[in-house]
Amino acid sequence: MAETAAYGGIEAGGTKFVCAAGTGPEDIGAPVRFETRTPRETLGEVIEFFREHPVAGLGIGSFGPLDLDPASPAYGHITTTPKQEWRGVDLVGPLREALDVPVALDTDVNAAALGERTWGAGRGLDNLVYLTVGTGIGGGAVVNGELLHGTTHPEMGHLLLPHDPAKDPFPGCCPYHEDCWEGLASGEAMRLRWGRPTEDLPNDHPGWDLEAGYLAAGIMNIVVTLSPARVVVGGGVGTAPGLLPLVREKLAMLLNDYAAFPGTTQDMNDFLVLPGLEDRSGVLGAIALAMEH
Amino acid sequence: MAETAAYGGIEAGGTKFVCAAGTGPEDIGAPVRFETRTPRETLGEVIEFFREHPVAGLGIGSFGPLDLDPASPAYGHITTTPKQEWRGVDLVGPLREALDVPVALDTDVNAAALGERTWGAGRGLDNLVYLTVGTGIGGGAVVNGELLHGTTHPEMGHLLLPHDPAKDPFPGCCPYHEDCWEGLASGEAMRLRWGRPTEDLPNDHPGWDLEAGYLAAGIMNIVVTLSPARVVVGGGVGTAPGLLPLVREKLAMLLNDYAAFPGTTQDMNDFLVLPGLEDRSGVLGAIALAMEH
Repeated sequence: MAETAAYGGIEAGGTKFVCAAGTGPEDIGAPVRFETRTPRETLGEVIEFFREHPVAGLGIGSFGPLDLDPASPAYGHITTTPKQEWRGVDLVGPLREALDVPVALDTDVNAAALGERTWGAGRGLDNLVYLTVGTGIGGGAVVNGELLHGTTHPEMGHLLLPHDPAKDPFPGCCPYHEDCWEGLASGEAMRLRWGRPTEDLPNDHPGWDLEAGYLAAGIMNIVVTLSPARVVVGGGVGTAPGLLPLVREKLAMLLNDYAAFPGTTQDMNDFLVLPGLEDRSGVLGAIALAMEH
Repeated sequence: MAETAAYGGIEAGGTKFVCAAGTGPEDIGAPVRFETRTPRETLGEVIEFFREHPVAGLGIGSFGPLDLDPASPAYGHITTTPKQEWRGVDLVGPLREALDVPVALDTDVNAAALGERTWGAGRGLDNLVYLTVGTGIGGGAVVNGELLHGTTHPEMGHLLLPHDPAKDPFPGCCPYHEDCWEGLASGEAMRLRWGRPTEDLPNDHPGWDLEAGYLAAGIMNIVVTLSPARVVVGGGVGTAPGLLPLVREKLAMLLNDYAAFPGTTQDMNDFLVLPGLEDRSGVLGAIALAMEH
């Protein structure tokens, strides 16, 4: 039997692994970050952290793509990531063996959706989407009260969208789909299009209006497919000051008061929101995964 | 107690209501069709049919949009349809009162998804999409083994897609979103673009290649959002001879072997399929709705 009531959460990202132990937003303290180096080094640091902070179970919200099919021999592995060193790496096995606790795994965005549903901006909602817009774009979802997986897991960043080259000649930067959503509207796409990182784009730069348009179009596609009660937008680009109000305006124009989807400004303010857990949605969601496991 | 083991199914469409009674594909006989006239006339004929064919419960798969929120005072009503006479019409109440049986309601496409999952091309799959491409475009889905509703219900026909006016100058015909999926690729869009009904377009007309491209793009968006195990394509346009193989090719090119989504030709043949119940997916699905209710 576990001798602790704490659970561990790991937000496993391409640049850092964020770890915390506790039972919710009030008691996890400041999450600890480890740079993403080789699997041996980084997983070693994670294991060390949880040896010092014993937990009854672990949850991981990870970058991917992941094999989440419990019947698959590669369950718990990262599959085809462009990060060569992490390709085919088993995340679940080594942690379970080293720490001797149950380990739950889901995508980083599904974990964040669960975190926001449990303690954040989507509390108690049975149909919720969490979107991250940072270096890349990804979406997680709760549908009928359960995390959405399908047969593998969604990759909402790869939605195809209207792209008018006369208005935006940038060809897109997705290595698979060129001008898909991520190829047009990720932080990386903005950096390549404007020749500088998004942090250096002034608030009145036309790039933000273009960005808001792509975010609205992608969110519209998610809305007409999943009909969520709310969409939480996180990530370094998604939470940039002033961006979300622009996206709300454009989304209302695109949906054009169709069916029972949100139409009014008031609807939009409630519908499209920033994370309630700020930058801790992922690591807290990983703890929620462990608690539900 | 009901004195019959039969269930009733109604596929309620904008041009016809299709009714059948039984317990599955083997015993429903030939479904009976009533032209969609006024609600009083058409619901009257439906009630008459089920007085002659007594059932233990009724299921309706209907055109919409619908109010499917059991807590809403307008539950069971058609809401904002362009068909004026049917706007605000209660489908559930009159049938329940006249026939004194439980009545289950869902969208036509969700009913068809359930029909295909129960007896057709998606038998037993926990993650399945049913798409109809006819006068309009609509999608229903099973997610985690349950019908997908979200807070209202999906309207997948209104996905936004790449549209190159140089290649296709048709501006789209959706009254809400102009060149959304339905606005570009419904049977109505094809009729307006080419000046004749799809039945009169020869097999080698370039319109089919364009159509296959739009279908592939829309299906890609559904795939990256829901990650279904299979997509069943029905409807008068969707089942046009020779179209689906073209869509498979284009979908494989668009997905470009990304993540664990279907990549090979063999994958695509299993993934993107015609209905197993031919044109009875909807009415049989409505019977399945009644049986599950």
